[in-house]
Amino acid sequence: MLKFVSLLLALSFCQGLQHNNIDDYVEAEPVFEASKYGSLWPLPQKVQISEVSFKLTSSSFRIVDAKASSAGPSCSLLQSAYRRYYEYMFGSAKKQWWSKNNRRSDPSDLSELQVWITSPDSECDGYPSVTSDESYELTVNQPVAVLKAPKVWGALHGRIYTRFELNFCPPTLHLFQKSINAAIINDFPRFQHRGILLDSSRHFLPIKVILANLETMAMNKFNVFHWHIVDDQSFPYLSRTFPQLSEQGAYHPYTHVYTPADVKMVIEFARLRGIRVIPEFDTPGHTQSWGKGQKDLLTPCYSGSKPSGSFGPVNPILNTTYDFMAQFFTEISTVFPDGYVHLGGDEVDFTCWKSNPDIQKFMEQQHFGDDYRKLESFYIQKLLDIVTSTKKGYLIWQEVFDNGVKLKPDTVVHVWIGGGSDKEMSSVTAAGYTTILSAPWYLDYISYGQDWQKYYKVEPLNFEGTDEQKKLVIGGEACLWGEYVDATNLTPRLWPRASAVAERLWSAKDVTDIGDAFNRLSLHRCRMVERGIPAEPLFSSYCPHEYKGV
Amino acid sequence: MLKFVSLLLALSFCQGLQHNNIDDYVEAEPVFEASKYGSLWPLPQKVQISEVSFKLTSSSFRIVDAKASSAGPSCSLLQSAYRRYYEYMFGSAKKQWWSKNNRRSDPSDLSELQVWITSPDSECDGYPSVTSDESYELTVNQPVAVLKAPKVWGALHGRIYTRFELNFCPPTLHLFQKSINAAIINDFPRFQHRGILLDSSRHFLPIKVILANLETMAMNKFNVFHWHIVDDQSFPYLSRTFPQLSEQGAYHPYTHVYTPADVKMVIEFARLRGIRVIPEFDTPGHTQSWGKGQKDLLTPCYSGSKPSGSFGPVNPILNTTYDFMAQFFTEISTVFPDGYVHLGGDEVDFTCWKSNPDIQKFMEQQHFGDDYRKLESFYIQKLLDIVTSTKKGYLIWQEVFDNGVKLKPDTVVHVWIGGGSDKEMSSVTAAGYTTILSAPWYLDYISYGQDWQKYYKVEPLNFEGTDEQKKLVIGGEACLWGEYVDATNLTPRLWPRASAVAERLWSAKDVTDIGDAFNRLSLHRCRMVERGIPAEPLFSSYCPHEYKGV
Repeated sequence: MLKFVSLLLALSFCQGLQHNNIDDYVEAEPVFEASKYGSLWPLPQKVQISEVSFKLTSSSFRIVDAKASSAGPSCSLLQSAYRRYYEYMFGSAKKQWWSKNNRRSDPSDLSELQVWITSPDSECDGYPSVTSDESYELTVNQPVAVLKAPKVWGALHGRIYTRFELNFCPPTLHLFQKSINAAIINDFPRFQHRGILLDSSRHFLPIKVILANLETMAMNKFNVFHWHIVDDQSFPYLSRTFPQLSEQGAYHPYTHVYTPADVKMVIEFARLRGIRVIPEFDTPGHTQSWGKGQKDLLTPCYSGSKPSGSFGPVNPILNTTYDFMAQFFTEISTVFPDGYVHLGGDEVDFTCWKSNPDIQKFMEQQHFGDDYRKLESFYIQKLLDIVTSTKKGYLIWQEVFDNGVKLKPDTVVHVWIGGGSDKEMSSVTAAGYTTILSAPWYLDYISYGQDWQKYYKVEPLNFEGTDEQKKLVIGGEACLWGEYVDATNLTPRLWPRASAVAERLWSAKDVTDIGDAFNRLSLHRCRMVERGIPAEPLFSSYCPHEYKGV
Repeated sequence: MLKFVSLLLALSFCQGLQHNNIDDYVEAEPVFEASKYGSLWPLPQKVQISEVSFKLTSSSFRIVDAKASSAGPSCSLLQSAYRRYYEYMFGSAKKQWWSKNNRRSDPSDLSELQVWITSPDSECDGYPSVTSDESYELTVNQPVAVLKAPKVWGALHGRIYTRFELNFCPPTLHLFQKSINAAIINDFPRFQHRGILLDSSRHFLPIKVILANLETMAMNKFNVFHWHIVDDQSFPYLSRTFPQLSEQGAYHPYTHVYTPADVKMVIEFARLRGIRVIPEFDTPGHTQSWGKGQKDLLTPCYSGSKPSGSFGPVNPILNTTYDFMAQFFTEISTVFPDGYVHLGGDEVDFTCWKSNPDIQKFMEQQHFGDDYRKLESFYIQKLLDIVTSTKKGYLIWQEVFDNGVKLKPDTVVHVWIGGGSDKEMSSVTAAGYTTILSAPWYLDYISYGQDWQKYYKVEPLNFEGTDEQKKLVIGGEACLWGEYVDATNLTPRLWPRASAVAERLWSAKDVTDIGDAFNRLSLHRCRMVERGIPAEPLFSSYCPHEYKGV
């Protein structure tokens, strides 16, 4: 029997990163020390680490399906994960050509990781969903380690990473040798919905950037990519049904669009990493770019008695609007396999509607008085019925709930307005709706210093409400709006700041030690850097392998 | 005769970038419009642009030495500049293999740029200095354009860029065709010292990152790389005389050091772009990393009557300290060809000195009373004498002046403390010293939105003083301190925010139109992106060629 003690992982931090508390500007910065949890991020629910360690040799180490596993060699999702993780483990050791002929493992080697999907349906060929079982159990012992999970999502979706999170070491110390401590990990997420919002409208994001960030999301156990794909500024989504939307509305009709093949690739790349892709098509506001390619979709604004030439939100009084939306969202429902679509509904400016005489007439007919929120609700209600008919659930920004629109019971209300978001969480859940939180996690706001700590300290259930209400909080999302972000700065601005949100949404509620978080996150960010991701530093320090790009 | 009118450069912005003033957070953002100066950045002192334009064809266009030029084919500085600029012009058109056999130029082509160095000594093989003549005159007319400059620095140091700053166009419009407007430009810098400080101690900066930023500095007409090479956190400079300094003091003795060959490469890469390299070896504070490899260099701190085990600033009371400094700065004087060294001298914490009984005794002997500034000055004075004996001038941070240290008349005082920097500029220049300004340009401080405008609005001569005093302000530096910056985020954080400082230091005092600056800078940043530099966006928009990295 192994004695499990909370000792340093022998090689998880080795000499540690040098750190120093001298800072010209900020006092009381955390000073790096090795955490007893090494570089584990986000911290698993239960982890026991032994002082016994095993060698890992790239030439002999294998990741294999357990005999009893319900997912075998035909599960390409797992097979491609094995390859990916093997490369992460031994990336720099692939040059061990000299040991190719020496495949016998040392008795002290850990020679195998067996992956065992225990449920009869592995879900290997399915898509992750909000109810996916993401739990897993990892036992590292000699001579084989076993990773047990009911579904592939547990085995795959970042979970296998923890296997390697036990191993991080400046390679100069052990040039051709890696090792791992004996350990038992039992893990599952605290919240089911752990998302990142990227905005490809304010700036077009090349596919390469989106894929790199999906990869990094997986490293941080995020499982939802909220793709804010279009907005006022541009319409890069190439619609098969309405190609003129991107022809006219994208920044450029060829170089700044997402083709159906692009979208498909993003969805499959995400699925292979256990990540859902939820597209947002925000209406009736935030739609300037839609109007360029779709005549009469937007409301003509008036200046006095004449049209001013500019346009406002979607025109809610025309039947053609709803015909368009029905066709458009039917396409969306087939292109995006996830059970949910984000329908936006935020920040509708009523100025243009108020100026338009036809809208005024309609308001009278409908007995809406001067309350344009009723007109907005009228529109949204019809849109929700359309989307429901496509068999999709929906997420909406909080204003739609605030305005009293009738929502399906499975609607997810997305709370984003800072200041009073705790009260909003109370009301939304008191009304019985499921909710996700973004208000404290607008990562496009930047400031000097370690703002990840601010994100880390958020407690999503810190609002007044019953236990039943708290259960309706299914998670949250870090939002990186795109006004000041494009391919040049997106990745270092997002990581590792979003990693703070990742741990808050995954780990147990009582994981709040900011010093320990700093120690683990410093190493976790170096791991991201080593894997080619330009995750920015937390503070003065170094990584064994610095970023190789510019 | 051409009529010179201030018309749109026919192709300099073509359809312009789409822009839109919708922003969720900030009101009154500038809206992009084409500037009459196209994408020129920084704006030349005098520029006349004609409506007449000429075609540019990569197969026929040549950059050649003018017959009367004092710099011929043996001037490798110019020859390598020609190649670089040709690639910038026609980079994406290099694939015009089909036109290789068609070298005859169209009559409407601009076929040649003649570069004419007019002074008998071109300074081709020299190093740029604070007195270098950087002026140039560019005449674009048919069939040849002429670039006249007294020295290579005028022709080269970013000046040839302006030639191409007249040409920026989404390539889809003119796939295989570029063109340029007739123009006359007369240009010279307002300030001689236009610098960027990078900090390779808080985080090690791989050589590749330094070179990419030197290239970008040249695109922005910066001419000083202030290399804050060592500090408390690490000592990456590999000294031939004292190799143990980096062996012990670097983050890593092999992967995180600058070898003599690295330093040489940086200096030559900079020289070829008209950029001076001024290293900073900051003492007596900010020297923790020096102490690791050099025994007895730092002051042992005391806790009561016993050494505490920690160390303070350089020990100013030992002869060995000055022997070490003499040898060290003799090496520095040969390794770095520039006439100046930055000696630091900022932020000396007296706590440790005060705790040390030997220091206390020395204070008594010297009749310094309790004034530790006198001890600091004692040290600095001896250091300045040492550096003077190596035939170098020096820059020092403002505290050295504030503390009344006797300085050589050619000393440059570096003003960095925010709040009251205008008063400091008054006192320093009233005392007759040359000065450079950094206080308003600490670019490591970040905030949401377009903070480049804040940097742009600074007027360096906005302090009380005579005309004679104002003449002593030779320029300024944008500082990017390294606590939160490494290879992952340095470049997008620096550019285009530092470009605002570049124009302030180069262009005429009355170039202050923030809207016009926004329009030109939007295009200038896209040009940097097109050349592979991840310069971040100013606001929602797009570039014809988005950044290709991650």
